[in-house]
Amino acid sequence: MNSEPRKISAADLQAFIARAFVAIGISAPEAASIAELMTRADVNGADGHGVFRLPQYIRRIKGGAVNIKPSIRVERDAPGMALVDGDNGMGHLVMRFATEHAIAKAKTAGAAWVGIRASNHAGPASLYASMPIEHDMIGLYLAVGNANHLAAWGGLDMLLSTNPIAVGVPAGEEPPIVLDMATTVAAYGKVKTAAQRGETMPEGWMIDRMGQALTDPGRANEGLLLPIGGYKGYGLALVFGLLAGTLNGAAMGRDVVDFNNDDTTPTNTGHVIVAINVAMFRELKEFKASVDQLVRDIRNSKRLPGVDAIRLPGEQSHAKRAERLQSGVPLPAPLLRSLDQLAAELKIAPLK
Amino acid sequence: MNSEPRKISAADLQAFIARAFVAIGISAPEAASIAELMTRADVNGADGHGVFRLPQYIRRIKGGAVNIKPSIRVERDAPGMALVDGDNGMGHLVMRFATEHAIAKAKTAGAAWVGIRASNHAGPASLYASMPIEHDMIGLYLAVGNANHLAAWGGLDMLLSTNPIAVGVPAGEEPPIVLDMATTVAAYGKVKTAAQRGETMPEGWMIDRMGQALTDPGRANEGLLLPIGGYKGYGLALVFGLLAGTLNGAAMGRDVVDFNNDDTTPTNTGHVIVAINVAMFRELKEFKASVDQLVRDIRNSKRLPGVDAIRLPGEQSHAKRAERLQSGVPLPAPLLRSLDQLAAELKIAPLK
Repeated sequence: MNSEPRKISAADLQAFIARAFVAIGISAPEAASIAELMTRADVNGADGHGVFRLPQYIRRIKGGAVNIKPSIRVERDAPGMALVDGDNGMGHLVMRFATEHAIAKAKTAGAAWVGIRASNHAGPASLYASMPIEHDMIGLYLAVGNANHLAAWGGLDMLLSTNPIAVGVPAGEEPPIVLDMATTVAAYGKVKTAAQRGETMPEGWMIDRMGQALTDPGRANEGLLLPIGGYKGYGLALVFGLLAGTLNGAAMGRDVVDFNNDDTTPTNTGHVIVAINVAMFRELKEFKASVDQLVRDIRNSKRLPGVDAIRLPGEQSHAKRAERLQSGVPLPAPLLRSLDQLAAELKIAPLK
Repeated sequence: MNSEPRKISAADLQAFIARAFVAIGISAPEAASIAELMTRADVNGADGHGVFRLPQYIRRIKGGAVNIKPSIRVERDAPGMALVDGDNGMGHLVMRFATEHAIAKAKTAGAAWVGIRASNHAGPASLYASMPIEHDMIGLYLAVGNANHLAAWGGLDMLLSTNPIAVGVPAGEEPPIVLDMATTVAAYGKVKTAAQRGETMPEGWMIDRMGQALTDPGRANEGLLLPIGGYKGYGLALVFGLLAGTLNGAAMGRDVVDFNNDDTTPTNTGHVIVAINVAMFRELKEFKASVDQLVRDIRNSKRLPGVDAIRLPGEQSHAKRAERLQSGVPLPAPLLRSLDQLAAELKIAPLK
């Protein structure tokens, strides 16, 4: 019974996360802002990117790796771009600031490309790619991951991360399209989950240093993640990293800090958020009708044998959100125990 | 002997292509501009996207599908964006115009997102992603392909094309990084080449309508191309198509015209070119030194057993360019015959 997941309401989860950040010294409004985004990640089904990360975030703040009183600011600004200096603050605060700046700029500029440096892990990419949607804008997000688990194609030196891309597109009557994907076949979080559950990984996720398929997740530290499409995914991880990292003066390649194994070094995480104002390109209603039509054409496609439904990117997350707002976020017992322990350490009220 | 490839100098190739377009009614300067870009494609090793396409381009012009006297213009313009109306002109002319506009805007705007509609096939994506490089800018190019060979993941209706992405990044002493890739495991051109050569395709390129691996390229019209990374590549093809097609009021989904089997219908091809002015983000010298360092770290990585070299995106194309500028572009005999036939039809001097 003690090992069953327990369902926690979004409100309780958010309040708990906020308490933890206040206890560690972050201002109440900023703690609330981070907690709201982290809870949104959990509600949307991004289980590896919400409260699951809280103990690690707190550990890194305690270790001095993250600035709890950042002065996040626009360092450079031109009509179609900006560069945001996150001052090593929590990634959620930095990315919310940068995304709001991109949206504000795109209102008149039509499109705004905002680069970000000196940031930190900010949760799931979809959070930021989705924010422009409610302003009838498209969001495009890129980031450099905070641990290198990928080599150049044919190589062994882990110089690349699973650098993600996320794109959010508003629709009319249909739910928005929200793609959020790593450039590797499996994200590293999936490997960790397989290890926790004692499961074998399918071939194609990882190889060992001889190039052989690695299927035992307990040996993950001896192996490399594989990029999607072989050399193509390597190319995508590389150019997304150049855009999100190198261009902004953020970490890329050998400079990436493995934030899973280091509680003291700032990561200098880089991101990109682009906000694209649909109405500047074409009549908004027509655009939304076209997206709806495409969504329906795809959903109603003839299917391969054995396929029960054809999904649009973001559809499963949308369904999870509806369900979890209703009945709560299921947290597995080991995570609940680690959050209880964290509450004790921080001397805050635990999750109800 | 008659079936050996013959090497044609870039100058002769370019002059021949220009003659063909002049003969069909395109103005001399515009014919020269198209010919220069098509020859550049061949010199760079994009064999399926250069002179190989000439007979098809001429056929579609004769069929009335392409406007030979287009009035290409900026239809909408804001500080960070523009929308270019290609007036159904040759894609090379439209994309050169749009890319030059993006570069000019990015000089002051820092970044410029330019959408294009009413265009046509424009050759390899790398041509346009590379143009900003000589202005010390990064180029990002997306397009909707001109034939749907891809279904949604799990589906059978071919609603998507192999929508490509290309990114060009300037380096310092190293050659620039130029990624140019389709979102499918194999581009359709590779399938056609395998068919011509009587070769079997590897598993993973295509499936038939029962979901089984299709390896006989002679049966390609019964099958579907597979996206890279399964549902991930489907997601990329979809969002790139929304950005390059739907946003610009260009064809996407069911509206895409198969330009291989239709010589009379305008394609309304959509593209995106983004020019990003590096010096607006960080000191140019530092950026270039960082790119050089990354290139060298990757190239000098330890290698998997059996791997002879680790390559950067664009490296093979760079080498081909050097070799072909020196010794000419090798054109296979069947292509040479079709170009001789085209010369006879157009009453122009054939390739020497």
